[in-house]
Amino acid sequence: MMQFNHRKYHASPVVHLPDRQWPNQVFTKAPRWVSVDLRDGNQALRSPMTVTRKQQLWQLLIKLGFKEIEVGFPAASQPDYDFVRWLIEQDQIPADVWIQVLTQARADLIERTFTALQGAPRAIVHVYNSISPIQRSRVFNQDRAGIMKLAMQGAEWVANTAAHYSDTHWRFQYSPESFSQTELDYAVEVIQSVLNVWQPTSSQPCIINLPATVESNSPNVFADQVEYVKRALNHDDRVILSIHTHNDRGCAVAATELALLAGAERVEGTLLGNGERTGNVDIMTLAMNLYSQGIDPELDMSNPDEIITVIEDCTGIACHPRHPWVGELVYTAFSGSHQDAIRKCLQQQTPNTTWQVAYLPIDPRDLGRDYSAVIRVNSQSGKAGLAFVLEREYGLLLPRWIQQALAPIVQYETEQQGGMIDAQRIRTLFEQTFICDQAPVQLLGYQLQRNGHDDMTARLMVNHQEIIIHGTGSGALAAFIAAWCNWSGQLLDVRDYYEQALGAGTDADAVAYVLLADDANQNAAIAGVAIDRDTVSAALKAVISAVNLRQLQLVTSD
Amino acid sequence: MMQFNHRKYHASPVVHLPDRQWPNQVFTKAPRWVSVDLRDGNQALRSPMTVTRKQQLWQLLIKLGFKEIEVGFPAASQPDYDFVRWLIEQDQIPADVWIQVLTQARADLIERTFTALQGAPRAIVHVYNSISPIQRSRVFNQDRAGIMKLAMQGAEWVANTAAHYSDTHWRFQYSPESFSQTELDYAVEVIQSVLNVWQPTSSQPCIINLPATVESNSPNVFADQVEYVKRALNHDDRVILSIHTHNDRGCAVAATELALLAGAERVEGTLLGNGERTGNVDIMTLAMNLYSQGIDPELDMSNPDEIITVIEDCTGIACHPRHPWVGELVYTAFSGSHQDAIRKCLQQQTPNTTWQVAYLPIDPRDLGRDYSAVIRVNSQSGKAGLAFVLEREYGLLLPRWIQQALAPIVQYETEQQGGMIDAQRIRTLFEQTFICDQAPVQLLGYQLQRNGHDDMTARLMVNHQEIIIHGTGSGALAAFIAAWCNWSGQLLDVRDYYEQALGAGTDADAVAYVLLADDANQNAAIAGVAIDRDTVSAALKAVISAVNLRQLQLVTSD
Repeated sequence: MMQFNHRKYHASPVVHLPDRQWPNQVFTKAPRWVSVDLRDGNQALRSPMTVTRKQQLWQLLIKLGFKEIEVGFPAASQPDYDFVRWLIEQDQIPADVWIQVLTQARADLIERTFTALQGAPRAIVHVYNSISPIQRSRVFNQDRAGIMKLAMQGAEWVANTAAHYSDTHWRFQYSPESFSQTELDYAVEVIQSVLNVWQPTSSQPCIINLPATVESNSPNVFADQVEYVKRALNHDDRVILSIHTHNDRGCAVAATELALLAGAERVEGTLLGNGERTGNVDIMTLAMNLYSQGIDPELDMSNPDEIITVIEDCTGIACHPRHPWVGELVYTAFSGSHQDAIRKCLQQQTPNTTWQVAYLPIDPRDLGRDYSAVIRVNSQSGKAGLAFVLEREYGLLLPRWIQQALAPIVQYETEQQGGMIDAQRIRTLFEQTFICDQAPVQLLGYQLQRNGHDDMTARLMVNHQEIIIHGTGSGALAAFIAAWCNWSGQLLDVRDYYEQALGAGTDADAVAYVLLADDANQNAAIAGVAIDRDTVSAALKAVISAVNLRQLQLVTSD
Repeated sequence: MMQFNHRKYHASPVVHLPDRQWPNQVFTKAPRWVSVDLRDGNQALRSPMTVTRKQQLWQLLIKLGFKEIEVGFPAASQPDYDFVRWLIEQDQIPADVWIQVLTQARADLIERTFTALQGAPRAIVHVYNSISPIQRSRVFNQDRAGIMKLAMQGAEWVANTAAHYSDTHWRFQYSPESFSQTELDYAVEVIQSVLNVWQPTSSQPCIINLPATVESNSPNVFADQVEYVKRALNHDDRVILSIHTHNDRGCAVAATELALLAGAERVEGTLLGNGERTGNVDIMTLAMNLYSQGIDPELDMSNPDEIITVIEDCTGIACHPRHPWVGELVYTAFSGSHQDAIRKCLQQQTPNTTWQVAYLPIDPRDLGRDYSAVIRVNSQSGKAGLAFVLEREYGLLLPRWIQQALAPIVQYETEQQGGMIDAQRIRTLFEQTFICDQAPVQLLGYQLQRNGHDDMTARLMVNHQEIIIHGTGSGALAAFIAAWCNWSGQLLDVRDYYEQALGAGTDADAVAYVLLADDANQNAAIAGVAIDRDTVSAALKAVISAVNLRQLQLVTSD
């Protein structure tokens, strides 16, 4: 049998639930978030976290606002045991935070678990056993009844041992491991048997946690499974319905969201989705998904770079540049049409209106990112990208006809070097292309008299010879062009003109952009740019740039 | 207004479709796969691909089995134009493969697009315009009618221009960009207006491609949207219903899968999910999701390491170690209980039965991975992990009581060094702990006579003095222990014994594992191991190891 052969596998069973209600639901609030970074996350690392890193991560989790944190499997791991003791003995647990520890349903482990927790003000004891057909037959060699008995015994041991430690406020949690790969009727039986032992009440609820230990079907099936269990249990406030999802099929976020629509109230996951194999569900993505829909995520995600730094330190795994919401590239637009749309939308965005910017589902500044990441220019970018970059970096507001003329020059450069081009290089290309006010023609000085019309007398250097030119017109620019045409015999006219201040105050530089029509060449236009402290000089020099560049460029009309 | 504030956003509208049918569907076959790696993928890179890399990627896509490949936006990019010409002029397109090119709905771009495609045997011309409320009001400053007119004009230009190039077999594709953020009734109107222009038939179908340009809602909503459109169009084989999803909310795979359940037939995506911002949907994950459910993915994913190498080269972005199905860590189990379950399941897995291994949704060998990646040992691992590693690397089949005694020693070591421990170090710890057959007691030789019972005479070195011991028993081992006890006065008995060959053939070494009860110390047992070419010597030396180690270890009973 060839190795790559789909016939070795079969589809996981689906649920018959034609009257499912979850697809009619919408999100209205954040679930209870549970971090399992210190347990499921830590377990899956080449190098499990050192004590220092665990402490750093713990402090981050508290700062972000987690109220339930699974801190380890103290009965199986001495470092986990020591960490739990540190939390308790060093009084590290805020009054509104529950620590949670995992244990298998074995008497000796449960005993040691409670020893680890001695003196904790409040704690969740999370007991599990695996119940799927594969686990029953191949791992535990037990039938349904045998596995159910394990679960009940575990529940009893937990309840009985807890009774000996009455100083702690206990909460019990049961996970039927591999739930999503188990026959649903049997899973409900097992859960019910545990509830029969624990007899939870509204004031002393317990947690039933439904894991997709290995994600094995599309996320709608998991939602169906959760809705099935919720209905079968006649779920009410005696049970907190929790889910714990993994990402084997790349659908952990979706499975979690759909399960929340199906009635789950509590989510176990990790930051950036660290965890066994493909990882646990990423709570950051879930929280930001809610945030982007106007729902309070009840976690403070405003500084993802701090989160990323801590998680990368703790896990030794780099955050992917395309990680939803927080990856380095996710607010970057290289495409010209995207850049153009973003630029137009941002111009119309005011602080007090709902965010409406194409291609940017949220304002990157919410996550401490600035717009410098938003638009980058490569060979696939158009004029909008370079205009955005020059505006952002240098305050240059290029008229559309400058953008159009510059775009192919920038594109050619990026195609030649095959990479991204930075703002400084774009500015250099811009200046090389449009600023040319020193030779062969140079402005030495001018005199302007306004009497109804404008009289311009300008002193120029032309090919190393000083000349005086004179002309009149409506405005300094027109008068200067008239003077130049009088002297040179050229037939130039202003087609468009734009001037801006660079920076604020009276000593700001002015940038003048001029587009001249060359009447000797019907379809041609010549663009010139100049920068000067004096606004009139800037305009005149822009004309001189255009004149000097006349031989070099041809700007097609828009 | 504070920066991190969810009130700036609002929920995307959902669809009222209480009689939706997609949640009742299951997957039965692979969709048409369309690679957009060379377009959407390439567009989103810091350094767009060089010609050489594009050619390399093209060849990979053909090899994997893609039959539709979007190769660029030739009207907007000279490198894309040149690449299309290379494909056509160098006859690179197999007879069953369609190339596809993107263009905006503008006359000049469409004209240039067809010029780029001149001489292609067959090609898909993919025209789009953006139709969402934000795009209409903020980017295009057009009302519904204006944007619909753009779409119709685009469709007309495409159809009219195609008529001038009758040597090519054309297929037309229309994308209402930002579809998933558009009022559904309007989206259907726009699509219908394009269909009215193109008048597709069963033999000349066109493609309607529904993009989640920016993913903005949970994946069930996208599925509802797709089902809505399918119904509104009275969808039949004149239209190929396609989807194009992005991963902004981390749900692109899920959105695609649910949309397939809703009736989409064709998926545009990329390998490893490269693409703008968070990326396009990852076709590898989609294909492997089908594969793992026993459905032919119709793409050859058997060598993901080759795919990863090419994509990493082309994109400059590393594959995440937890990437579904193909990441470096996704078949690795560090947890003791997972390792134990995997080991037990693998032992029971036969080649001709359905794959049933806990925590391993597929056989890693299908993707060219071997089991060396499956289990690694760190401080969170238990006995199963080290047993697996020693078995895999050295063929050592440790009895359970050896595993139990060795586990805390390995765990202590990993806790001290805080990292992963390799097979060689585990073997060293194993040998240091259990093999001790040289001093103070050493076996020099033996003589064995079988007469109903076994007579053993052995020559030993004890504290540098040669001695002869003698004993009888049932079997060599019992006789040797009797001899030792006769001489030493100790009260030892065999509690368990196990011997295995290391390697094959008559010259293979034998490994003997012996567990002795120490009758002078009720609950104690002593384990010893030895390796020898001779099976009897191995057994006797294992006893000597146990005797020598007697002071050092205490093995608790199971």
